[in-house]
Amino acid sequence: MSAATAQEDPIVKALQEFTTCDVSDALIKLKYRNGGFLSGLTMWSPQRQDGDTKIVGPAYTVQYVPLDDPRPKHPSHYIDSVPAGAVIFVSCPPKTPNAVYGGLMSARAKASGGVGSVIDGRFRDLQEQRGLGFPIFARDVGTAPPAELLKVAGVNVPVKLQTDEQDMTVRPGDYLIGDVNGVVVLPMELAEQAIPLMKKQVEADEKMAVEIAKGMSFSEASKKFRL
Amino acid sequence: MSAATAQEDPIVKALQEFTTCDVSDALIKLKYRNGGFLSGLTMWSPQRQDGDTKIVGPAYTVQYVPLDDPRPKHPSHYIDSVPAGAVIFVSCPPKTPNAVYGGLMSARAKASGGVGSVIDGRFRDLQEQRGLGFPIFARDVGTAPPAELLKVAGVNVPVKLQTDEQDMTVRPGDYLIGDVNGVVVLPMELAEQAIPLMKKQVEADEKMAVEIAKGMSFSEASKKFRL
Amino acid sequence: MSAATAQEDPIVKALQEFTTCDVSDALIKLKYRNGGFLSGLTMWSPQRQDGDTKIVGPAYTVQYVPLDDPRPKHPSHYIDSVPAGAVIFVSCPPKTPNAVYGGLMSARAKASGGVGSVIDGRFRDLQEQRGLGFPIFARDVGTAPPAELLKVAGVNVPVKLQTDEQDMTVRPGDYLIGDVNGVVVLPMELAEQAIPLMKKQVEADEKMAVEIAKGMSFSEASKKFRL
Repeated sequence: MSAATAQEDPIVKALQEFTTCDVSDALIKLKYRNGGFLSGLTMWSPQRQDGDTKIVGPAYTVQYVPLDDPRPKHPSHYIDSVPAGAVIFVSCPPKTPNAVYGGLMSARAKASGGVGSVIDGRFRDLQEQRGLGFPIFARDVGTAPPAELLKVAGVNVPVKLQTDEQDMTVRPGDYLIGDVNGVVVLPMELAEQAIPLMKKQVEADEKMAVEIAKGMSFSEASKKFRL
Repeated sequence: MSAATAQEDPIVKALQEFTTCDVSDALIKLKYRNGGFLSGLTMWSPQRQDGDTKIVGPAYTVQYVPLDDPRPKHPSHYIDSVPAGAVIFVSCPPKTPNAVYGGLMSARAKASGGVGSVIDGRFRDLQEQRGLGFPIFARDVGTAPPAELLKVAGVNVPVKLQTDEQDMTVRPGDYLIGDVNGVVVLPMELAEQAIPLMKKQVEADEKMAVEIAKGMSFSEASKKFRL
Repeated sequence: MSAATAQEDPIVKALQEFTTCDVSDALIKLKYRNGGFLSGLTMWSPQRQDGDTKIVGPAYTVQYVPLDDPRPKHPSHYIDSVPAGAVIFVSCPPKTPNAVYGGLMSARAKASGGVGSVIDGRFRDLQEQRGLGFPIFARDVGTAPPAELLKVAGVNVPVKLQTDEQDMTVRPGDYLIGDVNGVVVLPMELAEQAIPLMKKQVEADEKMAVEIAKGMSFSEASKKFRL
């Protein structure tokens, strides 16, 4: 997906209306496991799991591997090729104490029109990240740069979520959606089918919420509005 | 415990004065392991481990199990039978990526007079939860509904805390107390004994804090006020 | 290091200008593993990983061990001997559900001129900690006191970070630096070498940030200012 199309993509526009939970509801209906939820990746900037921040965009993936991995180091710096509208997804070997992403990365990504970064590992420079107002979702904070342990072996390649608890993959161009509930991957080939399912469920749930607040039972409201 | 008595229960009223730490101090004196602390369950709504929110009430328990569990699915929706004054405690198999509790559950619980929910697993719709001002304590956030993986097999049955690090059980009617420090279970049969111990220790600790601020050593203050 | 020298120590003064990330950058250049980062220890007070709070000081270490450890219990209470300017570092066996540090400890530490506490385990009384405005970094919250499980066996002895993911030790007098990114140990014998490296990198990074915001690539900015 080119820089221009990422921002004008009607899927990206349509997804602006929905929460990560809405996306997962639709993906569950389409039998996509765990509704696309990517566990362990939570919002750190501009606020810690607070506020209305939401990011939506096609994934631009980066794969860090241990220095002794046989693959060669990627020849250029990944941060200089971020398409406008993209969500950067940085994969890092599990349990790495060092951070794989810092403040200058976000300064550069912001200048390129990137909409946020999702770090499957540690990031650093939290003060700078918040100062930039750049959205960061990550596993945890850190302080040390990664070069003593890791190198980038791939850019825009499929990467697996670094957890034993799920089997999830993010491919370049898959949609990433992040908000206070976490991060969801919407596989690109399911996006067109998923959007109308989101609209339908949100409408039903809004009606249910109104009736439940008035005293209707959940079972009755569900029967009335969800079927 | 019936809906009416939960709210008028003198134990619930007495516990309003104390923090979770005060409850644990008393339970340690009564030799109850870990002072009733239930590790891993922290405040997410109305704020993330901030503010003065505290919940107290008898537990109304819900047990989610894997779909292939031999027990049948509970015949009605648990959320339609929450007693006024109760704290909902939802148990979920460990490491489930899907959420077991969402915004409509809190809308319904609030309408019934429930005082908060403790989720031993993931919950979702954090924006809605905060919009409702309904207290939520949980292991983590999530986005996907649970029906592809789990079913409710029991309501108001004893449930074990889902951790390898402690052996703790919550039984229907045990008191649950939650604040910024986490969640504590006060077994119903220990409650009457525990309350006077809380009062005594809080009084001693307040005196200690005053003298320590003035420069007294901890050892001296402890000797003077705790014995 | 005596109480008086801790506060007047030129190293402590120099470190006030730098973030934990700056310290780690310098330690990586000096080949100190993980740039001194101590994983898992994050800010809880005065705010939860927010604001400008930073602590710097020589470590005053405390070692909790299981009750059945053959070493005798330390004869006096460690909190009554905290030097002015020190950062308290409390080590606790991994996966202990009980807290090893509470509000009265901070009241006493504050009265002695301690600058903050780092708890490699659980702490409690979060409301009191914030009320005191005393900086706390820790693994997690808790509610129960530790005496049923643990005793203090050593004060001002080297302690290992309680994690399988790193091999890090904190020795009495090593510098501890904590901010929103976490906690870093700066071994005392590396401090003098490290400070000038911090200054140099911060200057280069500030220039890079300015040019990157104007549109320069990261690679070009790095070549121009870091070499």
